[in-house]
Amino acid sequence: MWNSPKVGILGGGQLGRMLVESANRLNIQANVLDAENAPAKQISAHDGHVNGSFKEREAVRQLAKTCDVVTAEIEHVDTYALEDVASEVKIEPSWQAIRTIQNKFNQKEHLRKYGIPMAEHRELVKNTPEELAEIGKELGFPLMLKSKTMAYDGRGNYSVKSKEDIPDALEALKDRPLFAEKWAQFKMELAVMVVKTKDEVLSYPTVETVQEDSICKLVYAPARNVSEAINQKAQALARKAVAAFDGKGAFGVEMFLLEDDSVILCEIASRIHNSGHCTIEACPLSQFDSHLRAILDLPIPAKSLEFRQPSIMLNLIGGATPDSHLKAAERALSIPNASIHLYSKGAARPGRKMGHVTVTAATMHEAETHIQPLIDLVDEIRSQRSDIKTPAAKSGPSKPAPSVAVMMGSDSDLKTLVPGLKLLKDYFGIEPAVDITSAHRTPTFMAEYAASAAARGIKVIIAAAGGAAHLPGMAAAHTALPVIGVPVKGSSLDGVDSLHSIVQMPRGVPVATVGINNSVNAALLVARILGSYDPAIQRKVEAYAEKAKTENLDQKGVKMRELGWEKYFEQM
Amino acid sequence: MWNSPKVGILGGGQLGRMLVESANRLNIQANVLDAENAPAKQISAHDGHVNGSFKEREAVRQLAKTCDVVTAEIEHVDTYALEDVASEVKIEPSWQAIRTIQNKFNQKEHLRKYGIPMAEHRELVKNTPEELAEIGKELGFPLMLKSKTMAYDGRGNYSVKSKEDIPDALEALKDRPLFAEKWAQFKMELAVMVVKTKDEVLSYPTVETVQEDSICKLVYAPARNVSEAINQKAQALARKAVAAFDGKGAFGVEMFLLEDDSVILCEIASRIHNSGHCTIEACPLSQFDSHLRAILDLPIPAKSLEFRQPSIMLNLIGGATPDSHLKAAERALSIPNASIHLYSKGAARPGRKMGHVTVTAATMHEAETHIQPLIDLVDEIRSQRSDIKTPAAKSGPSKPAPSVAVMMGSDSDLKTLVPGLKLLKDYFGIEPAVDITSAHRTPTFMAEYAASAAARGIKVIIAAAGGAAHLPGMAAAHTALPVIGVPVKGSSLDGVDSLHSIVQMPRGVPVATVGINNSVNAALLVARILGSYDPAIQRKVEAYAEKAKTENLDQKGVKMRELGWEKYFEQM
Repeated sequence: MWNSPKVGILGGGQLGRMLVESANRLNIQANVLDAENAPAKQISAHDGHVNGSFKEREAVRQLAKTCDVVTAEIEHVDTYALEDVASEVKIEPSWQAIRTIQNKFNQKEHLRKYGIPMAEHRELVKNTPEELAEIGKELGFPLMLKSKTMAYDGRGNYSVKSKEDIPDALEALKDRPLFAEKWAQFKMELAVMVVKTKDEVLSYPTVETVQEDSICKLVYAPARNVSEAINQKAQALARKAVAAFDGKGAFGVEMFLLEDDSVILCEIASRIHNSGHCTIEACPLSQFDSHLRAILDLPIPAKSLEFRQPSIMLNLIGGATPDSHLKAAERALSIPNASIHLYSKGAARPGRKMGHVTVTAATMHEAETHIQPLIDLVDEIRSQRSDIKTPAAKSGPSKPAPSVAVMMGSDSDLKTLVPGLKLLKDYFGIEPAVDITSAHRTPTFMAEYAASAAARGIKVIIAAAGGAAHLPGMAAAHTALPVIGVPVKGSSLDGVDSLHSIVQMPRGVPVATVGINNSVNAALLVARILGSYDPAIQRKVEAYAEKAKTENLDQKGVKMRELGWEKYFEQM
Repeated sequence: MWNSPKVGILGGGQLGRMLVESANRLNIQANVLDAENAPAKQISAHDGHVNGSFKEREAVRQLAKTCDVVTAEIEHVDTYALEDVASEVKIEPSWQAIRTIQNKFNQKEHLRKYGIPMAEHRELVKNTPEELAEIGKELGFPLMLKSKTMAYDGRGNYSVKSKEDIPDALEALKDRPLFAEKWAQFKMELAVMVVKTKDEVLSYPTVETVQEDSICKLVYAPARNVSEAINQKAQALARKAVAAFDGKGAFGVEMFLLEDDSVILCEIASRIHNSGHCTIEACPLSQFDSHLRAILDLPIPAKSLEFRQPSIMLNLIGGATPDSHLKAAERALSIPNASIHLYSKGAARPGRKMGHVTVTAATMHEAETHIQPLIDLVDEIRSQRSDIKTPAAKSGPSKPAPSVAVMMGSDSDLKTLVPGLKLLKDYFGIEPAVDITSAHRTPTFMAEYAASAAARGIKVIIAAAGGAAHLPGMAAAHTALPVIGVPVKGSSLDGVDSLHSIVQMPRGVPVATVGINNSVNAALLVARILGSYDPAIQRKVEAYAEKAKTENLDQKGVKMRELGWEKYFEQM
């Protein structure tokens, strides 16, 4: 069955090339319509390719004749050419979907009908300063002025900061069909790859994108410090938006996460997308595999779209000279866990996407640590471009999200915790989030703190309290994470009150209790738990025990044998 | 720098093809010497390929002229042709290494000098029944009779069960240079991919291989139920063996794990190898990436050779008809987490490698579960071959390795543990290993049990004990894993003795203590710990809390409001 279907691809750039990689592995012939020796053609040796442009009607017709299904790696194709051949060959997604999506105004008008939340927009019909000023009064400033068509990678967009920018904005986008969009005050840009098959709409997990110079710079997968609820909400929104269009294949859906944690749509691409490149390494099926399967009606197990590990994708962008991006590629060879993809586009122009690097790791923080030197170099290469005036986009919170939270009922518990905190930091290199969260004085804050801990990336909580010690148990009641309780010895009852208050929890809400005042054991328990999934930490736990053994056997033991117990005791 | 080096590859089969995939991603031109339209050439469109055979001297010379480095995807190349061109082009690994390795007798004689452990062998010089009978007396029966040269995928090997087989064996391998090898009574076949660079010898983790009809059927990565010590031992042996040869690149090292846990060498391949295919999905750098980097003196971060997740590779072998293997490929499309690689070799011959499938998953057991239907189908396809008489190779222990161990000091503690065990099994679907391991009656067994737990894949231990309850603390003293202690209420002191014996551990050895007799909380603590790394389990912990909340609010609460407390109490 695989030897039969031939897939036609409009466009043979990097997206087409990575699609051909997937086709090659399934022994599916991909016929590419693009210039001779386009990136996608270089890795597909057969005589079924078509030389020409995906905007030429005759070339599209020629391609259609040789294929069973035609798809596109770019939305700026001639949809009238596709409509022409639609009776002869399957087109996925449909030419109607591509036509609606390639006009951003029509795309949004269409999605609005399906109840997709997005920033307000207004059509310009006269493209006059007066008209835009009027719209500015309605939507407020700043606002985005956008070309309806042929807009991609920031081209065709102009951010109008105030009324004064109006003439420049209209000049920059003159002779184009325009609309204006209310400014989205977002705290993060999210994206979801959606795969529409003949009978379902699937999605990959939500990723975080960082844009620079209006093109994608970084993709963090999954999105960092975003709760499971927001991940699900963004996926559901993306699937709903894609379901509004006809046809099969992968769609890239870009969204904004607003300050109030609501998610609105930014825009849709009717194709495989830069925000999905990480799926090559992160998932059993990449977006390219899924697109191919979707348009050929081959099965896609939903489980194959889950992430194996966190990953970060960094684009390699053309710099000041035709080969400056290769410096970054060369540096990437030494980055642990980095997989390199160069697109073989030849000499680079500044700002052109020349390749990308994906780093996977057991934790997002590890991936961040590995990739940071490469981001620094990419920023340096960018700084040498004469066409760039703005500083580099920040890659966001690169401080490690702590995996351990330490809560104490009162600052008087801190001195008890210090030996454990020091052990965690100095010996294990683990920096926990440390907070005062009293179950009695700040019960609501404590509850929220515990309830949101898992979403913040916390894996284990230590909670210390004394007397009628409620904090560990209450924290455990608000989270699904393991909570380690440290009973702090108070002024009366020798700490037995704290111990029993912490350990004797009712069935259903466990607290992992350690000995009275024994924060060292709490810290070691944290290390043992993390160590079950992180061999480096487990080895440190083993080394800690080994050191204790050596001290007892080889130092204290030898000394006592040498000195005798009486002298030893004198010296104690 | 990437645009310059050209790599020549002797052989354009599936190994060459996957090597070209890696070259494509680095925009390195690979010139392939093989028949026109060989699998590797199909994904590399340029005019630098050479049509011909890697055994023709003239063709090798022609290839060498166009390249900076020449390598081979097969060891049965004409090393004299390589020697011829060695002054004009770099050859990696060296022709000397390939020449020694392609003769299995010379390979072993060479490795013996370097102290590599392997099965005893004897050279045949006359190939007579008398000579082999004499050798049989020395080595014992069964023994393996092997051709020194041109032996691969079982061709050139004959297992001589007893003296009576001698005439048939010599007939089967007549006119070939022979040697005999002592039978290795192994419990598992292991393999390690080694990468030799200009200044170091790196290795991937140890995998387990299952052979069928003398060719590789399955690869489990990492090897199942093998301790970290054996993993390290096998890697060290493999690196030492490869270090004995000259030149750079990937080498496949096959080994036997014997009953006494010693590891001996089986054989080396001077190339990328079937046992390393899983690295495409399982590692940031595949064996093909690493080979390419090694021969081009590009950096290889050691961390990039670690496994992201466990994986299983299954070969798709030609069956009774030219397309019967495609049935398996088609089935693989529906297997969760399966990545499919078809080699585009055209029509299949029975027994020919036509493709492979790799399944990755969070745990080996999950991967085993996903791939089983595909193994069953592959076995069925094989059973239809007329050239096959033997039953399918067993894929070995498919029982899941438990991630939780439950230890009790005495069977009298079992009834206390039952509610927790039931919760783990019935609600969370977690089947722990459950054992009686008394700290007082079986102290040595207990110590070994705890000490080996991590190597057996255990992530958390529950230990229950009563009275002078030493088991949890002693178990914790012998392992780096988190140990959860359940104090069991004895006949006196109301369980306070057990509680204090378990919780009041000295600094340095923590026990996560739960309430007296509260095995339910111990089970929930296990789920919380595993859940920190397994979202499916964490969701179940959340659902458990949600259920408890609903019961209290919506059922008991409503009932008490409706009935009033007096009636409610009557009905209790």
